[in-house]
Formats: sequence, structure tokens, C-alpha cells
Amino acid sequence: MSGARFQTGCELTYQVTSPCAYIFNVSVVGNAFQKIAGEQFITDPPLQVEESRSPTEDKRHHRLLASPGQLKVKYAATVDLSHHVEEPGAVSQTPPGEVPAEVVPYLYPSRYCESDKLARLAHHEFGKLQPGFSRVTAICNWIRDNVEYLGGTTNPLTSAYDTATERAGVCRDFAHLGIAFCRALAIPARFVSGYALGLVPPDFHAYFEAYLNGRWYIFDATRLSPQTSFIRIGTGHDAADTSFATIFGAMTMTSMKVTMELVSGDAPQFSTGAVSTS
Amino acid sequence: MSGARFQTGCELTYQVTSPCAYIFNVSVVGNAFQKIAGEQFITDPPLQVEESRSPTEDKRHHRLLASPGQLKVKYAATVDLSHHVEEPGAVSQTPPGEVPAEVVPYLYPSRYCESDKLARLAHHEFGKLQPGFSRVTAICNWIRDNVEYLGGTTNPLTSAYDTATERAGVCRDFAHLGIAFCRALAIPARFVSGYALGLVPPDFHAYFEAYLNGRWYIFDATRLSPQTSFIRIGTGHDAADTSFATIFGAMTMTSMKVTMELVSGDAPQFSTGAVSTS
Amino acid sequence: MSGARFQTGCELTYQVTSPCAYIFNVSVVGNAFQKIAGEQFITDPPLQVEESRSPTEDKRHHRLLASPGQLKVKYAATVDLSHHVEEPGAVSQTPPGEVPAEVVPYLYPSRYCESDKLARLAHHEFGKLQPGFSRVTAICNWIRDNVEYLGGTTNPLTSAYDTATERAGVCRDFAHLGIAFCRALAIPARFVSGYALGLVPPDFHAYFEAYLNGRWYIFDATRLSPQTSFIRIGTGHDAADTSFATIFGAMTMTSMKVTMELVSGDAPQFSTGAVSTS
Amino acid sequence: MSGARFQTGCELTYQVTSPCAYIFNVSVVGNAFQKIAGEQFITDPPLQVEESRSPTEDKRHHRLLASPGQLKVKYAATVDLSHHVEEPGAVSQTPPGEVPAEVVPYLYPSRYCESDKLARLAHHEFGKLQPGFSRVTAICNWIRDNVEYLGGTTNPLTSAYDTATERAGVCRDFAHLGIAFCRALAIPARFVSGYALGLVPPDFHAYFEAYLNGRWYIFDATRLSPQTSFIRIGTGHDAADTSFATIFGAMTMTSMKVTMELVSGDAPQFSTGAVSTS
Repeated sequence: MSGARFQTGCELTYQVTSPCAYIFNVSVVGNAFQKIAGEQFITDPPLQVEESRSPTEDKRHHRLLASPGQLKVKYAATVDLSHHVEEPGAVSQTPPGEVPAEVVPYLYPSRYCESDKLARLAHHEFGKLQPGFSRVTAICNWIRDNVEYLGGTTNPLTSAYDTATERAGVCRDFAHLGIAFCRALAIPARFVSGYALGLVPPDFHAYFEAYLNGRWYIFDATRLSPQTSFIRIGTGHDAADTSFATIFGAMTMTSMKVTMELVSGDAPQFSTGAVSTS
Repeated sequence: MSGARFQTGCELTYQVTSPCAYIFNVSVVGNAFQKIAGEQFITDPPLQVEESRSPTEDKRHHRLLASPGQLKVKYAATVDLSHHVEEPGAVSQTPPGEVPAEVVPYLYPSRYCESDKLARLAHHEFGKLQPGFSRVTAICNWIRDNVEYLGGTTNPLTSAYDTATERAGVCRDFAHLGIAFCRALAIPARFVSGYALGLVPPDFHAYFEAYLNGRWYIFDATRLSPQTSFIRIGTGHDAADTSFATIFGAMTMTSMKVTMELVSGDAPQFSTGAVSTS
Repeated sequence: MSGARFQTGCELTYQVTSPCAYIFNVSVVGNAFQKIAGEQFITDPPLQVEESRSPTEDKRHHRLLASPGQLKVKYAATVDLSHHVEEPGAVSQTPPGEVPAEVVPYLYPSRYCESDKLARLAHHEFGKLQPGFSRVTAICNWIRDNVEYLGGTTNPLTSAYDTATERAGVCRDFAHLGIAFCRALAIPARFVSGYALGLVPPDFHAYFEAYLNGRWYIFDATRLSPQTSFIRIGTGHDAADTSFATIFGAMTMTSMKVTMELVSGDAPQFSTGAVSTS
Repeated sequence: MSGARFQTGCELTYQVTSPCAYIFNVSVVGNAFQKIAGEQFITDPPLQVEESRSPTEDKRHHRLLASPGQLKVKYAATVDLSHHVEEPGAVSQTPPGEVPAEVVPYLYPSRYCESDKLARLAHHEFGKLQPGFSRVTAICNWIRDNVEYLGGTTNPLTSAYDTATERAGVCRDFAHLGIAFCRALAIPARFVSGYALGLVPPDFHAYFEAYLNGRWYIFDATRLSPQTSFIRIGTGHDAADTSFATIFGAMTMTSMKVTMELVSGDAPQFSTGAVSTS
């Protein structure tokens, strides 16, 4: 266990042109590894905001109806992080027959993680490796070695199948490909959106978690930020159900600002340990 | 309310060549509209079977580990059906801002229902129609008029995006396209696998449900069987998480037999009513 | 026959960062319908330019090697146009068995015109229409009615298969879809790049030609400019082999200017006639 | 130069259900490396057959119109082969700026060879290798090592982009992927259909040629038959324009028999030499 306190959040501005229903997914989830010391979700103009927590997936929604005009949304939280870090060698793969019922959905292909189309490639590249934490690490290494981190080459429709061949993308694409490879090898894997320290430029981050040895472990093929600095916003099948905002109506986002900084405690370091979140 | 009793089930035979973990999703879900009067799930050879119910989605899993050799699985159930049927004109669309948290996931694109890529087509064809039950009926009519029901033209990788252009498919493809069009129009929609009366040849059936006016309503663009004969096995995002069997290991399916027959009560009829399941 | 004289051409500027081999395809093809009264192809700095004419397809290439630094290419031509216009009703379809050997290649699917994947859609929409000029006109009408002309929605990788479903695009996409539908119906069709009067903003244009009744006829689903103002640069299977510049090496295009204006004669008008180019 | 005489050909039987226009591309092309000592093209019933030779691509077409009923087509040829074999080390890459005009079309992406989508992968895997014959050999080795030769996994719509990720296919798919990689590296490459010795079961073969050092060289990632036994039927952009039969009308192929045997001379051997055909 390491521990540190962070201040994080975002400011989003929209020009709303028709009445819009918003579902925001920007707030931090409180759990044993990330404790919310304080937070606020403010809208300008002040609007009625309904908060809900997804019954199964670990995420919170803030919903509101906005009228035409400017809408500003500000979320800020103070969070105490203390990830659980283990010796990677001890983290074995859970046999698919023993995957708990609530984890089974993460074995299946999803919109942007077509594990069904990547099965042969996954088995060719990783099928003979020792199952467990080190195999998922090998998947991340392969992605980092074979896919170029390059903004502007992909779009919201880009999927793991595309990235496997087009070989360029951003954090979202790296996560999708890692998830797809895992599922193709019968390793449950899920998408995580979050805040992360030190991204340049500051932005929301995306990475993934694989289910091994009875827990969810963090993996991030981008290596852009230490995993022990990750603050989870939401988990889901892939970016399709983990967007920071789902909007019904006509609007334009006019600005987005994401922040995260260390308030106290030790600065997170890159580590080779197995960092788990459950 | 109409009422009738049915006997339904399946027999699946596999030649197992390496130890296999099976997750079966063939058993009927008991609820207010379909009451299970009796059922059995038998394996030959006799194996330990673990049953679980998906915490959120309405489906049951039977899991088992099979050793090399022949595996026979037989499921049989006696089910009393009494679907709720309404006047279609009364079924309006739920505004996206009022969709309950547990229904929100069915607004997003999924593996085989790429609503994000079909948005413009959906709006072009159906965007100006009156929201509500009749608009989803129009979607089903469009599919029946524009897509040919033709076995052998598609495969397990075929998605709604393909079907929108290739214009041929089977029940699974019809359901995927209906779901994708609904979600593109901000109507929650989910995939349903089930048993249905009178399919030739007998087989599992696939259709979809759209969330309208606070309930889930059955839609089936194939018109192959009366909706009031449908017995639900499972609901999911699409066929990816609603397969009748997910198998980890090497095997060959050597036979599949699906049965359904009316035991007592009135034979289900095609109706233009709105049939709901929740 | 109508006749008019035009001044047309382009200016392209590049920042060359490694030695680059350029194949330009911007010069007008001289033939019975478009006579070149004068032209020049100038580079700054002055470079050795090799000109060649494609042996089969109707287009010219200017090739050159550029060293790092700025490269400016200017092409200007004075062209006399006199398209052949016929009564559409007289233009019947050539049976596929009678298509000449040199036209046969335009029956096959190509990179951006996947007629093999669009066969069922083409037959569903157009299969029962009277073969001949009016059927290709119906194809163009369908495209204009169902696909939105919208810049920024597509990219150089977008193909007819995408456009059939995504329903938005620019002139290149409109042409690809028209070609794909034609070929799916056994009508030879080819891609044409050219200059056209009155485009806003001025740009290269793309349209297509269908082979009917022993000649190639111009079709343009965009309706952005009168067909009798089109000056052909090149024909090809699709945009893959009809790009205005193919470049081997590292460079950035820093500006592009395309011009076309009427010098003398009658201003071209939109017409419902069949305009042929061979 | 090695020399040997072969007897090759095919028998194709169709059940014609509506009047059909056939374009066959099964006959051998005569040139300096493959001399036709004798041949016949026979139909049963006897039909009028029109023969043409593609003006640019090296292939011949036999065209005919068939009435409903059975159609049998038999082609047989006696061919003297004497491929030109060189030292691979001497075969350098032709700079793209020096590729002759008639070869330029083979630099562009085509229907089943999407070099535009595979550019980054090609550069990642092969970009740093020494240009020339050995680099194309490295491409073939990569394909053989990473793609499984497996019938029944692909269909006529499968393209190089699919194969790059799905990692299974037959000779056609191996050729498409090799071509796409070459073009992505600015090496002209074309598809070749042909007869080959020793295929099990006997069938038409597909391989590719890359343009290097001013000639076309044979490459075959399948390694199923010695390259010096290949008898060319046709060259093209890819399988789209090199099909052994293009048929307009309704029919069913009821049997296909392909034969090739050595008549005299030395049996072709696998060699590491550079085998050229022009």
C-alpha cells in the first residue's frame, strides 16, 4: 500500500442549441482504494442534477436537462489513493470455468474490442506464453512496440480490429486492443476511464483492467503515467459505455479542461508491480 | 392477458477433445409473464453443474467442466405464458433523459449493433416518424421489406452494419439491425434469445425488445412466429453475450435439437398489439 | 453539340522535407470533345519534368523529382469543350456479353467501389428498373436523395460500402457509390477526375462515366456543376488510381488553388440530356 | 534457363438456368517464357466462342453466350516453360520515380489489396530492411510464418486487410497480402492466376509478381509448388479482375477439374533464385 492525496476534476463548456439531455460520467467512484475526501459537481446556470450509480458497473452518472444557451459543468474532487500492489509472479490466470458470474460479460467481444476477429492473431502472438500477469504484460509490451502513439490518426469509430492493422492510435485505442487480445485468450478484461497524473496535454485517460487470480489488475500499454496515480471514473465494456458525456440533443462542446495534481504524500512512481483495484 | 402452457427445450451433443469449460444459456427465465411449471437440466455423463443468474441481465447460466469424450446436454421445461398485450397507440417513447439507470446501457452501440455508424441512415429513414411503438414497427417493416431472410449468407461475425448494406440474413441479423436502428434514435433496445413456436426447421430464435413508455416491448422483424409464443432464455447487448453456449476448450458440436410445443390453452396468434415482457 | 472556351488549371505548393518523386495527374486530356488550345506546366524551382500518357486509361502524368525545400507547381490550360449530347431515351444498356475487351475491367469491383458487397442492395433498389440511361439516372437520384453532401465526414479511405450506410460524403464518395451500384448491375462504370465550373469553394471535381450503348456517358450525383462544363483530367477504376498527385517521400502540401472560368461561348447549363465523352 | 514441357488445363461444368454471358480466363498466355506448343478450347454443346486479348494486362479471354441446360468447357494446352532465373542479390528495387508508366497502376491500392490501410504495418515490419528482392522474400516469409494456410476460413470477399489480422487463408489471400505489403512500400506488385504442378487437391493457383530492377519477379508465400512450374493464365490488380470465369446470368457450377503434369524435361525444383517472367 502506498498513499497520497490528489485534487482532480474537469470543466466542460457547451453551446447548447436545442434542449439537451446529458448523462455525465466524470465523477470519481469511491471505494477501498480511492476514498473521496470531498467533491462537488456544479452547473452554470444552476440546473437540477440527478445522480445515479450503475447497478453493476462501477461508475456514477450525473444527469441533467439543459436549455439552449451556454452550459458550464465543473467537477472537482479530493481523493485519497492507496492502490494494492503485489508481486506479479504470484498473479495467475483464473480458469474461464471459474470466472464469477458478474465477470463473465467481460469475456465477450464488444463494440470496439472485437476479440472474435482477433482470436488467431492473439493465439499466434501470445498463445504459448505462460498464463497470468506476465502474459498480459507481454500484450501491453507488444502494443507499445507495434502501435505508434499518435493523436489525430483515429476517431471515435476506431476499434481494436482497426488498430491491430493500422498500428497507430491514442490511449483509448491502446486500451481497446489490450482488452480484445485478453478476451481472445479467455482473460476477462474491461475498459476504464479515469484521471491520471502528468498527462501532456492534460486529458481524461483510458486504460484497462484484466481479471486475474480473483481480482481486477490495472494495465496501461501507453506508459504515459504511473498506474498508482490512476483515479477511476468508470468501468465498462469499452469506450461505448464509458464516455465522459452522452448527450441527446444539438450542442457544441466549446472547451474542456481536465486537471489532476498531487496534494500530499509520495509522488506516484512507475512500478513493475501488479496494481489491483478490487 | 392470454394464457397457454408449453413444453420446450433442447438437446445438444458435443464431441469433446480437450477439457472444456461450458457456460450454457439455454434455460428459461422465470418471471411474471413466463412461469416455469417444471424443468430439468441433465448431462450425460452426469456432471456437476453450477447454476447462476446474471445479476443484471435477465438470464441464467449453467456451467460445467467436461472431459474428453461425448457430452450430451438436455434441457426441458414446462412453461406457462401470459404476455401482457396493449394498444400500440398508447405506447409512447421514453425521453432519453428519463431512461432509468439500468436501461441506459442499452442506448450504446455494441459488438454487432453499431448504432454509431448507422445514425445517419436511421435518421434519414425513421427520424421524421412519430416517436413511439409505431416507429419501432416501421423499423421492423423496413427490415422485412429490405432484407432478405436467407440462411447461409451470414456468419457469427456479421453485424448490423453489414446487414444494412448486404441486405440478407437470419433472425439474429434482423434483430441486430433493429436494435442498431433503435439505439441510433435514442431508443434503448436489447437482444433476446428464446424459444418460439413453429420455426421451420426448429431452432433457437432471436428477436429484440425496445424500451418504450417504461416497459420492454417485443419486436421481431422476421414475423416467423407469433410474439405471444416467445419464451425468453436471455437478454443481452447483442448475440455476443447471449449465445446459447460459450465454450472454452476444443470440441465439436455433433447435434442440436430444439423443441417447442403447445400443451394446453389457446394457440398463439400473430397480433398487432404491443406485447410487453416487463 | 455546344461549344465554349475555358481557362482552367491549378497551383499546388509543397514543403518538401526529403527527396520526393511526384506523379502529377492534373493536366487535361486532349480528345474530340475537349481540345487543348494551349497549356503550360511550370515548376518553381525549374525541374526536369517527364510527361507520359497512360497506355489504356485516358490520362496524362507529369513526373518529377523534388529536393527538400519549397516546390510550386502550376498548370494552366485553355480548352475548347463541345460535348456530345443525346436524347436519353435512345441510350440503352450494352449487354454484358457485348462489352468490348477494353471496357471489361470496369465491370469489376475496385478499392473504393465494392460492387461485390453491394450487389443485393443494388438489385433491391434498381434491379427492376428499365435498363439504360434512365436507370443510371435513377441511381444518381437515389444517391442525391439518400446521401448528404457534407465535407469533413469522410476521408481518403472511405469507400462506397461505407457511404451506402453512413450516408454522407463529398463528390468523390458520390462517384464511388454510383460506380459500385452500376457495376453491381453489370454496367461498366469508371471514375473521372476533372475541372468543373462554379464549384464553391473551387476544387478538383470527381464524377463518373457509365458505358451504355457503346459510349461512355457522364453522370454526377452531386449536381454541383453542369456536366457540359466538365473538363476531364483522368479516368480510372476509382480514386485510387486517379489522384491528382501521387508522392513518394516526405512533404506537406501548403496550398492548393484550382481555377476554371468561361472565356467565350455559351455558359454551360444543367441539362437532362445524355452527355457522352467518347 | 531451365526447360520442360507440360500438359495442363481444366474442365468446368455448369448447370445454366438463364441465358448466361461467360468471360473465361483459363487459357495460357504465350510469351518468351511460356510457349504454347498446342491448345484447344472446346465447349459442349458447341458454341460460338470469341477470343480476345487484354490490351494491357497479360491475359486472354474466351467469351460465349450459353443457353439454359448443361455447359461443359474444356481447355487443354501443351506448354514449354523456361523461366529466367537470376541471382537474388543482383535484383534491386526500382525507385518509384523510375517505374515505367505501364507499371504505375500496380503501385495503387485495389479491391482486395488495401495497401493504403496497411502502410504503417508494412513500414513497421519491413521498412528498415534492405530494398530489393530480399525484402520481398522477407514479406513472403512473414506471411508464411504468421498466416495459417487453411481452407474454408475465407471467402471471395476476404481482403488483405482482413488477412493481416485474421491470420488464415488460402493462396489467393496469401497473394493479396503480399501485394498489399509491396505496394505500401512503393514496390509495384500484381496478382497472377495460373496453373502449378503438384497442388493437392489440384486447383488453379494464385501468386504474385513484384516489379524490381526493371522486370517482374514471381513470389509465392504459400511454397506449395516450385515457382519454375508456374504457367501464367492472367495478371491483374488482384482477384477482382483475374477470376477464371466472370458470369452474367443464373447458373450453378457443378464440377471443376484442373490438371497439370510434366511431359518431358527436368522436374521443376524449389529454388532460392529470382524467377522472372518478363
